[in-house]
Amino acid sequence: MHRIARKPWQTGMVTSNTPPAQGTRLDPWFGAYAQRAHNMRASEVRALFAVASRPEVVSLAGGMPNLADLPLDDIAELTAKVIATEGMTALQYGSGQGRPLLREKIVDVMRLEAIDAHPDDIVVTTGSQQALDLVTRIFIDPGDVIIAEAPSYVGALSVFRSYEAEVEHVHMDAAGLVPSELEESIVRLKEQGKRVKFLYTIPNFHNPAGVTLSLERRHQVVDICKRHGVVVIEDNPYGLLGFDGEPLPAMRSFEEEGVVYLGSFSKTFAPGYRVGWVVAPHAVREKLVLAQESAILCPSHASQMAIEAYLSNHDWKRQIEEFRSMYKSRRDAMIAALSEFLPDATWNVPEGGFYVWVKLPPGLDSKTMLPRAVTGRVAYTPGTAFFYDGTGADHLRLSFCYPDEATIREGVRRLAAVISAERESVEIFGTTPQLDDVTDVDVPGPDIA
Amino acid sequence: MHRIARKPWQTGMVTSNTPPAQGTRLDPWFGAYAQRAHNMRASEVRALFAVASRPEVVSLAGGMPNLADLPLDDIAELTAKVIATEGMTALQYGSGQGRPLLREKIVDVMRLEAIDAHPDDIVVTTGSQQALDLVTRIFIDPGDVIIAEAPSYVGALSVFRSYEAEVEHVHMDAAGLVPSELEESIVRLKEQGKRVKFLYTIPNFHNPAGVTLSLERRHQVVDICKRHGVVVIEDNPYGLLGFDGEPLPAMRSFEEEGVVYLGSFSKTFAPGYRVGWVVAPHAVREKLVLAQESAILCPSHASQMAIEAYLSNHDWKRQIEEFRSMYKSRRDAMIAALSEFLPDATWNVPEGGFYVWVKLPPGLDSKTMLPRAVTGRVAYTPGTAFFYDGTGADHLRLSFCYPDEATIREGVRRLAAVISAERESVEIFGTTPQLDDVTDVDVPGPDIA
Repeated sequence: MHRIARKPWQTGMVTSNTPPAQGTRLDPWFGAYAQRAHNMRASEVRALFAVASRPEVVSLAGGMPNLADLPLDDIAELTAKVIATEGMTALQYGSGQGRPLLREKIVDVMRLEAIDAHPDDIVVTTGSQQALDLVTRIFIDPGDVIIAEAPSYVGALSVFRSYEAEVEHVHMDAAGLVPSELEESIVRLKEQGKRVKFLYTIPNFHNPAGVTLSLERRHQVVDICKRHGVVVIEDNPYGLLGFDGEPLPAMRSFEEEGVVYLGSFSKTFAPGYRVGWVVAPHAVREKLVLAQESAILCPSHASQMAIEAYLSNHDWKRQIEEFRSMYKSRRDAMIAALSEFLPDATWNVPEGGFYVWVKLPPGLDSKTMLPRAVTGRVAYTPGTAFFYDGTGADHLRLSFCYPDEATIREGVRRLAAVISAERESVEIFGTTPQLDDVTDVDVPGPDIA
Repeated sequence: MHRIARKPWQTGMVTSNTPPAQGTRLDPWFGAYAQRAHNMRASEVRALFAVASRPEVVSLAGGMPNLADLPLDDIAELTAKVIATEGMTALQYGSGQGRPLLREKIVDVMRLEAIDAHPDDIVVTTGSQQALDLVTRIFIDPGDVIIAEAPSYVGALSVFRSYEAEVEHVHMDAAGLVPSELEESIVRLKEQGKRVKFLYTIPNFHNPAGVTLSLERRHQVVDICKRHGVVVIEDNPYGLLGFDGEPLPAMRSFEEEGVVYLGSFSKTFAPGYRVGWVVAPHAVREKLVLAQESAILCPSHASQMAIEAYLSNHDWKRQIEEFRSMYKSRRDAMIAALSEFLPDATWNVPEGGFYVWVKLPPGLDSKTMLPRAVTGRVAYTPGTAFFYDGTGADHLRLSFCYPDEATIREGVRRLAAVISAERESVEIFGTTPQLDDVTDVDVPGPDIA
């Protein structure tokens, strides 16, 4: 057996297989990436969020839930019992669809939003982000169109980009997605020969827009999508976190065949286990299980059983009541601070969830302003993160989920000072300093999800 | 606002967007799936594995590790302490790359195979299956070629299929992948204008072939791939589970830029946490982090911290020694049983890992024989699972990881009886009964992974 002489790596790379690098000359594999990988790039804004995580900065940017009220000692004890008594199962591989007991518990959770599902309809996922990934994987070929609200969840847009989808944004108003615009978009896109695969919508306490789709419109949206053969992807991480009254019925509660529903324990319990789920019509669910097994073999047994133990032994409904009350108080603090410090901006008052969507005074750009905000020790998410085409710079998203009331007030106060300085700069110079080389905020990152 | 009348769903589906279903007429969404989804189908053999999980069947089919020796009480206590004292972190979102402390621990683990890595080089994944998915995601466009051993890991082939790759199999002998065949394949494929993106290889105690790539060939394989600009994907779940002597150096130990290394805690600790990792050159790793954030936002903090606690507080190297000794004894039991009951078959004697690759006596077909084996209360994985084109019916894979020695012996005894009956059938009828509608065993499923 002869030994082949080793040559310098760089020499090896100059082949027809790997064309010379463009733009990233330090990466010898630049020419070998898939087309979709070229859509993945870290933004300048992302780097800023690393700075924004410093303790002196008030971050109103993240979507991290406040876990301070969780009964950690109880959870510790429950988890230990699972490992000690059922460890051979908890530490072993499981089924790609997820554990039957957890799926039964999920049926109970969804009943609160009028969903009458069977455990067989459910596929457990690694957070509902993975549900989004799997749904997109089975439906989207490059160039297929996804309709989404304007604005839409940054993590969903990132998934859609990675599958090379086209995204059509449809406007929202105070009652959510506007059905007539949805139908006009579908008709126009089909006339253009496009394949419109699904509507991606967050009906409750929208991320980032904060609005909720009215009951009447829920029926209209489902009807429109049915008539046009478009799947409705109903993403509902915040549905149980309304501040007043009862949850509206999910679209899945009155339409089984046309709706794929995504749920999550990240906001109603804890994100650290990474457990979400998807409810889908029979044949779609079969595809999702196959996709799941290909992606990760099976969701974590240890995580699933920890959540089963929590749901079986803890008053999880009362815990959600506590979360609702706590987040409502923080929402109130943010709205009060906005009224006090930022009277020239406009915003909605969300009835649940984590976010306020703020329209800046005219002439300001939330993306180029961000570095100066971070210097001013406050962080937010620029509106550009929530549009596929990077528009939306006249808005920003403020999160009231993680910081306490006093911190929220201080953060908004600092933001007002940054905006005030920015407006002076606009008035004097006609523009504001630009952030060099800012590209899209196209990466979710848990810190801004 | 007018209310749009609802129409029957089936009517809505007959649109240009959703062509009439073919083959799966009961699925209204058949026409809406992505091309890749049509490659995902459950096989008849998969259904048999459900039967094979009955207690009266001896399953030599699965790749589940034996967890009976794990110190469950200690793990329970460590896990409880993590939740009770660091629960606010353990239950929260984390970074897409994974926790720095866990990545430091992983560096220690990899040092046992001579890998000198930095924690920054590592991305934590939801099992190494997800590492495979992410690596394929960033490198493979439809039609790109992946070179893999013949046979190769069924779960990898499933990932490659879902990204619409072409797979070229290269032969192995007792010293592993044959380098001259690797180079001939690359040259031939490039001459055909194909884009050869990576070599996927399992160098240690191969799944399913059981062989180990010699040290000399490791250098040759890396050299060949370097010269041709082909990435080496070194998948190494079993490397620390050799039965005698020290582990061979990983290819990553002598080549950093050209090797993407996949590791896992599933076989050396426990699969239930779903924690694996990938080590990649800088720019590739950056892409993997972005792909990871899009796929799941971040790997589970709770899982990562449970493994950190185990590695920090338990003598995990001694635990691996115990696993090695236990699996060696099971390997010996299987080889002894094969010699005793199946002298007409041939097999290799693996020096580590979980699997024996058995060549059947002439004229037999492991796929069509499987239902009769299950009837005979023994299950195995047919060789066809491990070839992209569904060939390999003259082989089957036997796993010695999960059942104990006596059960292994009984399983092989039953298999011998099934084979004996099958040979009689061949001698009398010239063929064996065929399994109707068997398609590829193209789904990993944790039970056969």
